[in-house]
Amino acid sequence: MKKSSGYPTRAEVLDKFFDNWAAPKRAELVATAEAYGRVLSEDVFSLVDKPVFRASSMDGIAVKAAAFANGIPSAEGWKLGTDYVRADTGDDFPDEYDAVVQIEDVTLLENGGVRFAEDMEGPIVPGWNVTPQGANIRKGALIGRRGTKLSPCELAALSIGAVSSVNVFKKPVAVFIPTGNELVTLGTEPRRGQAVDSNSLMAVHLLREMGAEASAYPIVKDDKAALAAALDRALAEADIVVINAGTSKGEEDYCHALIADKGTQIAHGVAAAPGKPMALGIVNGKPVINVAGPPVACFNGLDWCVRPIVSAFLERPLPVRRKVKAKLAEAISAGGGERFEAIVRIELEETPEGYLAHPVSHRNRHTTDALLAGGLYVTKLVPEPNGAGDTIEVDILSIDN
Amino acid sequence: MKKSSGYPTRAEVLDKFFDNWAAPKRAELVATAEAYGRVLSEDVFSLVDKPVFRASSMDGIAVKAAAFANGIPSAEGWKLGTDYVRADTGDDFPDEYDAVVQIEDVTLLENGGVRFAEDMEGPIVPGWNVTPQGANIRKGALIGRRGTKLSPCELAALSIGAVSSVNVFKKPVAVFIPTGNELVTLGTEPRRGQAVDSNSLMAVHLLREMGAEASAYPIVKDDKAALAAALDRALAEADIVVINAGTSKGEEDYCHALIADKGTQIAHGVAAAPGKPMALGIVNGKPVINVAGPPVACFNGLDWCVRPIVSAFLERPLPVRRKVKAKLAEAISAGGGERFEAIVRIELEETPEGYLAHPVSHRNRHTTDALLAGGLYVTKLVPEPNGAGDTIEVDILSIDN
Repeated sequence: MKKSSGYPTRAEVLDKFFDNWAAPKRAELVATAEAYGRVLSEDVFSLVDKPVFRASSMDGIAVKAAAFANGIPSAEGWKLGTDYVRADTGDDFPDEYDAVVQIEDVTLLENGGVRFAEDMEGPIVPGWNVTPQGANIRKGALIGRRGTKLSPCELAALSIGAVSSVNVFKKPVAVFIPTGNELVTLGTEPRRGQAVDSNSLMAVHLLREMGAEASAYPIVKDDKAALAAALDRALAEADIVVINAGTSKGEEDYCHALIADKGTQIAHGVAAAPGKPMALGIVNGKPVINVAGPPVACFNGLDWCVRPIVSAFLERPLPVRRKVKAKLAEAISAGGGERFEAIVRIELEETPEGYLAHPVSHRNRHTTDALLAGGLYVTKLVPEPNGAGDTIEVDILSIDN
Repeated sequence: MKKSSGYPTRAEVLDKFFDNWAAPKRAELVATAEAYGRVLSEDVFSLVDKPVFRASSMDGIAVKAAAFANGIPSAEGWKLGTDYVRADTGDDFPDEYDAVVQIEDVTLLENGGVRFAEDMEGPIVPGWNVTPQGANIRKGALIGRRGTKLSPCELAALSIGAVSSVNVFKKPVAVFIPTGNELVTLGTEPRRGQAVDSNSLMAVHLLREMGAEASAYPIVKDDKAALAAALDRALAEADIVVINAGTSKGEEDYCHALIADKGTQIAHGVAAAPGKPMALGIVNGKPVINVAGPPVACFNGLDWCVRPIVSAFLERPLPVRRKVKAKLAEAISAGGGERFEAIVRIELEETPEGYLAHPVSHRNRHTTDALLAGGLYVTKLVPEPNGAGDTIEVDILSIDN
């Protein structure tokens, strides 16, 4: 379905891509201690029962329940090691004991005897305050689901099951290639005609957040041979290649042609802005994405196009961002309408009546204001509320966890 | 205000702590390239204008606007370098040119001449498609706010402003001390009476997620001298000391006494469970927190008590977790009521009618089920909906970003 822009939508681009490409399934065994943030490639089951045999579920003393058959016994003459032993939470104790009295109900006497509180909790029957074998975890029980990204709690669950190594999906290796005659490296004072490469640092960390192993190449000049060489090197080293800008420079649509030349072109241009100029192809079976140069456009290309590709390597669904309802403070002016989805950065203002959404267009505000705006809203290709006072749902970009 | 449990609430514990302790203010200069995830300790301003002078805002050719004063000129005899130059997005160009025609409206002829599209966009006036000096960022403009945790986009904003190093809060150094005679290290097969230390790996990664520099000590046996030595070493090396379990074992309330002995006791026990047994004190001006041993209780102590302390070092508000409304599938049975806040892990089930909340009590389910449950709900000390079919608001613990 052609839109009046003549470009496919983001969804159409991705659908076509995934019709033509499937992520290789690659797993590797890593130590659980090193597996934070990795994604399980198979279900994981406990190797042990916990407790291995049994454990006290309270700090207290292990006793013989039979001694309590007729009520609270007179225990001032009890002997440690004969009538009772110490058994704190998690402790096992000798077979002849079968119940635990919590320490709050116990006074330990100088002579080794015991006095129990008159209102002690009970009844002290076999198994009282004793966690039986396998109650915390049963050998063979599921403790890690394929596709889980391992959080601290999930690492604890694997540890409880004595699972010291796990199979996880290999991280895809992503290379980001910054291009442009005007670019200088951060740390260099930009002179007239120059600008600091701001996208490499952003892209590497975005790619890492997505779950890739990421690095950036040195800046490549707008030179056909240099760009082709950088792409060849990246194709040899990486699973995903992202080329930044340098696309329609010098010779028009050069990079698009390079991708089409070496492999299969999936898309050239998308009906979404900022970031309309882009190209996506498959070369040597590997995704090659050319994202636009301006920082916000580059972010958008990484976010909507590269992120699902990284997720596919890890067989992960896309992350769900927190949404808040907000009232538009001003109409959205950036592009949009029938021709393009406008990807609008939103500054959220908390008011007593709820959130106010200030659209940050890179046309009338500093680029950095857009980058620092913590909300995202995408207009649709069909008419929808974009006027001041309309209520929209804003994605929260930056989430602490 | 005493509750019937006799223990202070979590909020009361923290209020008392922060009445008696303030985080030291410590910043350090780090390279922007290494500052991902760090927290700015001061506002940051752009060191440069971008563009430094001006830049084309389109891929195209730079022209002299005067040539368009009487409409589209006949340009087939134009010469590159005399009548026009190439000027792609971001490029500056010689002073004699003052406007840019987008490449889509231009045909470059073999002889160096140019043909313009009849319906070309315009009017081509001075400054057309030219981004003036400082339009993207103005020297001195705010590009990083004190207290910001640096995300990929924020690193890009700093780069645009040519800021290659930033002052950030020093990460507090946190040490986690696992204790218990029954503990063995992950990788060791637990025998009767033993259990794998699952909390160190969880705690280290939770502390890192909070923003601390974290490490775990080797397991310390339930031995007064060994524990005191470990605490002394930790106080010498760390800003925050977390002691896990070993608290009321052997001698009752030993660790509590150790903290009180060496410094100021803030709390001993809290009206929230799992995790009621805990102690908090200040020793040598440093927070020392003794969290309960069972994994879920340990998580809770780290989450409600240690997290705000780490945040204080970084002058950060507590992270806001995503909440979803959910209907309780079963009544919450775990403790709670008037005496304790029950900190309940929730398994969320998506249904056509919305979320169903399954409370996971560590009493009737595997410990690992609680650890793997992705939701959290805390009952209040006043009567509130805890019955099956009641609607509650559940915090989502694991967030992808």
